Amino acid sequence: MNRRLRLEPSLDPADYHFTHQVRARFAETDAMGVVHHGSYLLYLEDARVALMRHRDRPYTETRESGVDLAVLEAYVKYRRPVRFDEVVDVHLTTGAATRATFQIAYLLTVDAEPRATAVTVHGAVGPDGKAVRLPDWLSRAPRG
Amino acid sequence: MNRRLRLEPSLDPADYHFTHQVRARFAETDAMGVVHHGSYLLYLEDARVALMRHRDRPYTETRESGVDLAVLEAYVKYRRPVRFDEVVDVHLTTGAATRATFQIAYLLTVDAEPRATAVTVHGAVGPDGKAVRLPDWLSRAPRG
Amino acid sequence: MNRRLRLEPSLDPADYHFTHQVRARFAETDAMGVVHHGSYLLYLEDARVALMRHRDRPYTETRESGVDLAVLEAYVKYRRPVRFDEVVDVHLTTGAATRATFQIAYLLTVDAEPRATAVTVHGAVGPDGKAVRLPDWLSRAPRG
Amino acid sequence: MNRRLRLEPSLDPADYHFTHQVRARFAETDAMGVVHHGSYLLYLEDARVALMRHRDRPYTETRESGVDLAVLEAYVKYRRPVRFDEVVDVHLTTGAATRATFQIAYLLTVDAEPRATAVTVHGAVGPDGKAVRLPDWLSRAPRG
Repeated sequence: MNRRLRLEPSLDPADYHFTHQVRARFAETDAMGVVHHGSYLLYLEDARVALMRHRDRPYTETRESGVDLAVLEAYVKYRRPVRFDEVVDVHLTTGAATRATFQIAYLLTVDAEPRATAVTVHGAVGPDGKAVRLPDWLSRAPRG
Repeated sequence: MNRRLRLEPSLDPADYHFTHQVRARFAETDAMGVVHHGSYLLYLEDARVALMRHRDRPYTETRESGVDLAVLEAYVKYRRPVRFDEVVDVHLTTGAATRATFQIAYLLTVDAEPRATAVTVHGAVGPDGKAVRLPDWLSRAPRG
Repeated sequence: MNRRLRLEPSLDPADYHFTHQVRARFAETDAMGVVHHGSYLLYLEDARVALMRHRDRPYTETRESGVDLAVLEAYVKYRRPVRFDEVVDVHLTTGAATRATFQIAYLLTVDAEPRATAVTVHGAVGPDGKAVRLPDWLSRAPRG
Repeated sequence: MNRRLRLEPSLDPADYHFTHQVRARFAETDAMGVVHHGSYLLYLEDARVALMRHRDRPYTETRESGVDLAVLEAYVKYRRPVRFDEVVDVHLTTGAATRATFQIAYLLTVDAEPRATAVTVHGAVGPDGKAVRLPDWLSRAPRG
């Protein structure tokens, strides 16, 4: 399968360098009464966008410069359900950068209790959808 | 509020000229155990796209010709819940066309039982998002 | 069609009694490059939940008491697109309460510019999905 | 990270025992112009539900018998984008069953071209959300 997935998300929030809060929407729940497993990917994306804003590299600007950051792989391990209206702390940290890709590890907690861990692998793509070199600020980025 | 909404959706499937089937996804349910009210708009859109395909005017081609059909208004009346895995018949018919807009009325049934009615109002927009004249095939379109 | 829709949403934020902020997610955009029309219903729901929390009537508690607030009708008028990462102020105010239903009017603005208006009609339902009387705190509720 | 993920999805449709078709919705696209990475999880779920229906074990019945099939882990590798209105063949095969979990491997193709591969890990849970033994028909299930 040739997975690029390298990072091993820790269960300790102290191992992460940035945290973004998301409140679980009612629309994100399903008939099991808890947040649908598909909604977690939206929380991860929200946190990535917040990280870029925090680093003064808003994703809107990156996109306007002609570089999109495509998701190449995504992995989520669901540990305990998230319920409607719970506030989720999405902790994240970047790592495993190559010339063309980088990875992000995530820990999702509610009141400090782990609910999920995740890893995403990203690649820079140009307007034609082809892979391009990572922007310098990303490949040189300090973790976090 | 200056609503454009004109069509009055009938509860009789015979009053509609096209039907498209959608099966309710588990992800579309919410913690009430039924399909979330927001998902109905996706069923309406699915049915519109199927109608255009049926008329040999695939939406992908319309978009490539530089014309997008924006949703200007949407109204849904929820009559009875739709449950997971139910097959919904989305009946639709077009009407109330002006130079720049047209409307679609919808009846959603499951096993011939009405579950919802809806109306959407659409306008043609160019690549810059500004209103343009409706394509001829739309403004002259027979109902259905 | 027998619409219950009564409220006429004003374009002046001062006519609303509560405001909730939502930031447009990338996942909520579509291939037109702007937020998909279906996502607006999620913003409205988010704002309703925030209003109930603000009034010390969290929706989670209302649900645990055996009363769900079903959406009976929803209407949205799309005025200008919302773009990715924009912060939307969802202004809302309640009104038109009857024994079993109440309505909410909404104005969505970005940097004080109106992007959409909307109305939802709600009814209280018991665990069996049948209509019940509105809880006192809702039928007596001051506007806002 | 203690991943349970074991299956290695093949790129050859002949290695799969069941196929379900999904047509990409406009609402599932994002501002990159292609289907959002989060929507793939919905396609996988749709295909699982179709598989259970095909085996005369509709998911609705399984749920009514008090057993839910929770998603414990999910992994997706995005190979090429899926575009609006494309018909996706979701090929799947089950495997790696233990007393309490089983896995599904997926290959998503459009016109026989691989677009994504994926693996999900599932566990049976009772009404209280605690793990229970897999139903016999699942643990004994032939592949496919």
